[in-house]
Amino acid sequence: MRYSQFFPQTLKEAPKDEVAVNAKYLIRGGYIDKLMAGSYTLLPLGMRVVQKINQIIREEMNKTGAQELLMPLLHPKEIWNETGRWDSASEVMYQFEKNDKEYALSFTHEEIVMDLIRKHTSSYKDLPIKVYHFSTKFRNELRAKSGILRGREFMMKDLYSAHFSEEDLMEYYWKVADAYLEIFKRIGIDVKIAEASGGVFTTSHTHEFQALCEVGEDTIYHKEGWKFWKNKEVMTEEELSDPDVKSAQAIEVGNIFPLGTMYAEKMSALFTDQDGSKKPVWFASYGIGPTRVMGTLVEIFHDDKGIIWPEAVAPFQVHLIGLHEKADSVYHNLLEAGVEVLYDDRWDTNAGTKFADADLIGIPVRLVVSTKTLSAGSGQAGTAMIEWKKRDSDKTELLTFEEVLARI
Amino acid sequence: MRYSQFFPQTLKEAPKDEVAVNAKYLIRGGYIDKLMAGSYTLLPLGMRVVQKINQIIREEMNKTGAQELLMPLLHPKEIWNETGRWDSASEVMYQFEKNDKEYALSFTHEEIVMDLIRKHTSSYKDLPIKVYHFSTKFRNELRAKSGILRGREFMMKDLYSAHFSEEDLMEYYWKVADAYLEIFKRIGIDVKIAEASGGVFTTSHTHEFQALCEVGEDTIYHKEGWKFWKNKEVMTEEELSDPDVKSAQAIEVGNIFPLGTMYAEKMSALFTDQDGSKKPVWFASYGIGPTRVMGTLVEIFHDDKGIIWPEAVAPFQVHLIGLHEKADSVYHNLLEAGVEVLYDDRWDTNAGTKFADADLIGIPVRLVVSTKTLSAGSGQAGTAMIEWKKRDSDKTELLTFEEVLARI
Repeated sequence: MRYSQFFPQTLKEAPKDEVAVNAKYLIRGGYIDKLMAGSYTLLPLGMRVVQKINQIIREEMNKTGAQELLMPLLHPKEIWNETGRWDSASEVMYQFEKNDKEYALSFTHEEIVMDLIRKHTSSYKDLPIKVYHFSTKFRNELRAKSGILRGREFMMKDLYSAHFSEEDLMEYYWKVADAYLEIFKRIGIDVKIAEASGGVFTTSHTHEFQALCEVGEDTIYHKEGWKFWKNKEVMTEEELSDPDVKSAQAIEVGNIFPLGTMYAEKMSALFTDQDGSKKPVWFASYGIGPTRVMGTLVEIFHDDKGIIWPEAVAPFQVHLIGLHEKADSVYHNLLEAGVEVLYDDRWDTNAGTKFADADLIGIPVRLVVSTKTLSAGSGQAGTAMIEWKKRDSDKTELLTFEEVLARI
Repeated sequence: MRYSQFFPQTLKEAPKDEVAVNAKYLIRGGYIDKLMAGSYTLLPLGMRVVQKINQIIREEMNKTGAQELLMPLLHPKEIWNETGRWDSASEVMYQFEKNDKEYALSFTHEEIVMDLIRKHTSSYKDLPIKVYHFSTKFRNELRAKSGILRGREFMMKDLYSAHFSEEDLMEYYWKVADAYLEIFKRIGIDVKIAEASGGVFTTSHTHEFQALCEVGEDTIYHKEGWKFWKNKEVMTEEELSDPDVKSAQAIEVGNIFPLGTMYAEKMSALFTDQDGSKKPVWFASYGIGPTRVMGTLVEIFHDDKGIIWPEAVAPFQVHLIGLHEKADSVYHNLLEAGVEVLYDDRWDTNAGTKFADADLIGIPVRLVVSTKTLSAGSGQAGTAMIEWKKRDSDKTELLTFEEVLARI
């Protein structure tokens, strides 16, 4: 893409009311735009990052045997009443009335997917069911000041599974845990699994995927020998005062909930088992917030100049800065080689601004084509030299086009 | 995919309150599920169709130079007040109050994108801007009985463009019209362009993309020599009584709106032109409803047994019916060859049910591996024969695996 035609360009300043690093850099870099508190547009750069995160999630979800679908966002009160959550979760849910009918906006989808499951399940042969979607969640957060880490509207990948037995449920539950670890590994985030309470979802213990980060809202605890970290909610007094227990700040980037049979019992999602008896399905839900993951990446990977994207989710592979018109042919050659390249072809913009924008935007590899780099190659017949620099390093090198390609 | 593990299986009956052919077949085939009137889940089969439709749209949008982004669905009243549409479109908009703040759900995004544009545009050099997203629209339809043709919640691809002059706007407007024609051609729908009024969007004439279909809600008119068809709204009394004007029923699958400068004037989306003067941007919007397109395809392409998908958007390329265990190796060989195949491996299901399900689901090519087809090939050493049938034909043929591959 040519940056001269890209929407939008970088901004000099982030809005004054943004205090979080993720929001400041993402807004200035042109990744997101704030519509209102807790609500952001994903601009084309941000969309590219989120699409890459989503594709990694999709591939790992599909490997577990899950199928992608898409459930509605506007829900009738009746379904939420079946589990009692119309009332118990009313603080977090946007609820309203229109034409004498009451609706809620999706803050999660357990009840909705359970309605699907009960309509399409009669026998144990119809189980297990594993379905997920990428969709919008709405949560009435009173304070929304963490940028895209905690929004009133945000994107969620939520997976739901229904099983004929607790054993089958738990086998899949840990398979998804492994898939989540693989997802975060591929994205480039080091996560810890922490035991947690279930909030408005369940009375069982659940598991969170926590990315260690100094500005994280969560405090998690660990002691040598523990299999998992623990969220503050599930820590005992004794554990909290144990000097061998260490704590760390973290951002929750995923969570998994073994919900048991409570939802199926309340909503009559029953199946006929091999022995002919009717039983409620065993149920679990599993969530990752792709937009929150993007924000977490910025909190973890940045310096005082801007963002430093991990390769797997960078919006482009290469940021090519043109300071000489011969950059055009390098751009076309990169495109032909299948490289994703953002090409700064703004001829009326000075070099300093272009370098600063490249640092702010944070694409892993920066290439420069200038009179200086070109003259460096003049010794070898026909070999135009290109300056190569990684975003996370200060070292610059002069490479031929073939050498650049080989490194990408 | 193995159909034995596919969610969900086909249904014998559609809900009694569904009267539209698209809803009946899509529900019975396992493409969609109804959550409430006018609101449907896209089940995995339906999701695959919509993703293929979206990918065709995305490719053609990108070719026009447009960039993909994603705007929020929950909007503050203040922005809708700027154009007066909080009041003028209040019938179609879901509006509600929470914590002393008033919100609307997205029924369209002109105001939201205009807010983006004004924040990121200062000079004519920042124009044109061409951005689109695939997102959810909510419309308070009083009657919702056309299946997924007219929902209270549905998917929309909406593109918006902003320009420095009317000339530049109209040049892009007709470029998008061509892109739309190409999209529908690739999907397999024959569309007519019809002149229409602008509804709550504009006082200018606009253009609709109409798919001829007997059950369509719209009546469109044509006379030899007219460049475009016309919607009833823009027909004069004289034209309506002209015997040379013929009419047809149609389903609106897309529309484009040359909105002019009204939105920019009301919302102060101004740019500095080359002569130094401040001017409002020229604006247009362009919509296609992918879920409505799916419903339209079913209305046009079906028989009394089920759906007949055009190849470009079929959920799978091939429906393989296994009536002999050797179908397993055909399945694996198809997968290895990169063919998208739905494999009916339900060994406890009779052949008649499998054939009926294949007709209902409507994948373009049906393959059968049975004792009968296998024995037909026994004459040639090691050549297993496969029955080939197109969904839109009654003719069956016996082919070798290589012949099947060559035809796909």
